[in-house]
Amino acid sequence: METTLAALAPAEARARFRSGERVPTSGWADGFAQANLVSVPREAAYDLLLFCQRNPKPCPLLDVTEPGSWTTPLAPGADLRLDLPGYRVWQDGRLVDEPTDVRGWWADDLVTFLLGCSFTFETALLEAGVPVRHLEQGRNVPMYRTVRECRPAGRLSGPLVVSMRPVPSELVPTAVQVTALVPAVHGAPVHVGNPASLGIDDLDTPDYGDPVEVRPGEVPVFWACGVTPQAVIEQARLPFAVTHAPGHMFVTDLADADLRRAG
Amino acid sequence: METTLAALAPAEARARFRSGERVPTSGWADGFAQANLVSVPREAAYDLLLFCQRNPKPCPLLDVTEPGSWTTPLAPGADLRLDLPGYRVWQDGRLVDEPTDVRGWWADDLVTFLLGCSFTFETALLEAGVPVRHLEQGRNVPMYRTVRECRPAGRLSGPLVVSMRPVPSELVPTAVQVTALVPAVHGAPVHVGNPASLGIDDLDTPDYGDPVEVRPGEVPVFWACGVTPQAVIEQARLPFAVTHAPGHMFVTDLADADLRRAG
Repeated sequence: METTLAALAPAEARARFRSGERVPTSGWADGFAQANLVSVPREAAYDLLLFCQRNPKPCPLLDVTEPGSWTTPLAPGADLRLDLPGYRVWQDGRLVDEPTDVRGWWADDLVTFLLGCSFTFETALLEAGVPVRHLEQGRNVPMYRTVRECRPAGRLSGPLVVSMRPVPSELVPTAVQVTALVPAVHGAPVHVGNPASLGIDDLDTPDYGDPVEVRPGEVPVFWACGVTPQAVIEQARLPFAVTHAPGHMFVTDLADADLRRAG
Repeated sequence: METTLAALAPAEARARFRSGERVPTSGWADGFAQANLVSVPREAAYDLLLFCQRNPKPCPLLDVTEPGSWTTPLAPGADLRLDLPGYRVWQDGRLVDEPTDVRGWWADDLVTFLLGCSFTFETALLEAGVPVRHLEQGRNVPMYRTVRECRPAGRLSGPLVVSMRPVPSELVPTAVQVTALVPAVHGAPVHVGNPASLGIDDLDTPDYGDPVEVRPGEVPVFWACGVTPQAVIEQARLPFAVTHAPGHMFVTDLADADLRRAG
């Protein structure tokens, strides 16, 4: 009997990625939180930590490692250099490599930031009756740079990046309420319905990920996205950084339920 | 006609403190958020920022300044070196001064952290019918070091400090729900009813602030407290730091309503 991707345990998903499988993680290991990864040298870590504090919607922090460490309490036994299905390596703000293993790029002073990912609330959306188009279409989620500027921190500044899901008009309030409950994975949408006012000219040409169909009676709903630091790394021409490849997330052992608000 | 302390505008309150008035700020400038202050040299700021990220209940960040700056968008025109009613100055973890003006201690590399304060939710408690005893008794709130350890960050570690308000048993659920709505000012209590399990032997001898009366039918309710970094500064023997004096907070222009959850 074949195990569906949704039914995989997080460690099983990570083992497949460790063996080299390169695939977006939306729909994998249902019920467990996924995370964006950003690794920067210690000398840039204060600016990035402050950037996350000042921009909690795109950058909700789940964990920050000690310098050089590739482990996290979010997934004991995992190796952050191997267990994601795709990485991006950046030098002076330019993308220089897209490996599935970043051991060759690792350094003793790299501090790794794990940020909540909106894939985490897709199970809750489906349970509430809200369709998730990129899952239906077997694609990566579409992501867009916007004209909204993040609040800068030190040398770091750049545009807000958003993910988009088309939602039937009558279900927009449900989608807002369901996702508002989980601020640790971006929370409520930042924008509903008007791509142009975010500076998005054409939904069919996303800056990251794949386009998806928007059907009659649906409106595009935009959530803050953990790819934002990648746009910031580019703009700041940071000497060095490692990130996940958009949509190719770190699957943690943290249950979605652990992220629901308990203030 | 005399203006009550509660009816003062934040700028009026700050002007009185700037002129040297030394008094706890509970009950002042109703409806506006108050903040804890912690200033540390830039070289210690990464550890403190990480400590706050790892311990959001005692250390909910409202703002982090640029090095050397004494201004904040939370209160345009305010001077963070003058406008609090009491400061503490720390050297090697020892309290060395308790001035009402820290201009003489200021340095170009000081980064100031402003953390939410539980005084902010006292208006909401009163509106919900929950009495606030230290206000009734005209005292500072009692605060206690606990045996709960915070999650360390770099050189920084130490115990969780809590504030205590006695609440009639039947109103404890109300107190929890009202304060859970404002995580930016410590949110829901961390503990209800059993001081001994927090390592507090005697409620009548708080580590900071004043004791208050606990009446029959009331239980002590404990909230995480922004004095926690002061206990951490002591334990870490940080070479230098400036903080507010416990209970003598920075009154901001931020309306309480702005802090309610919008995820």
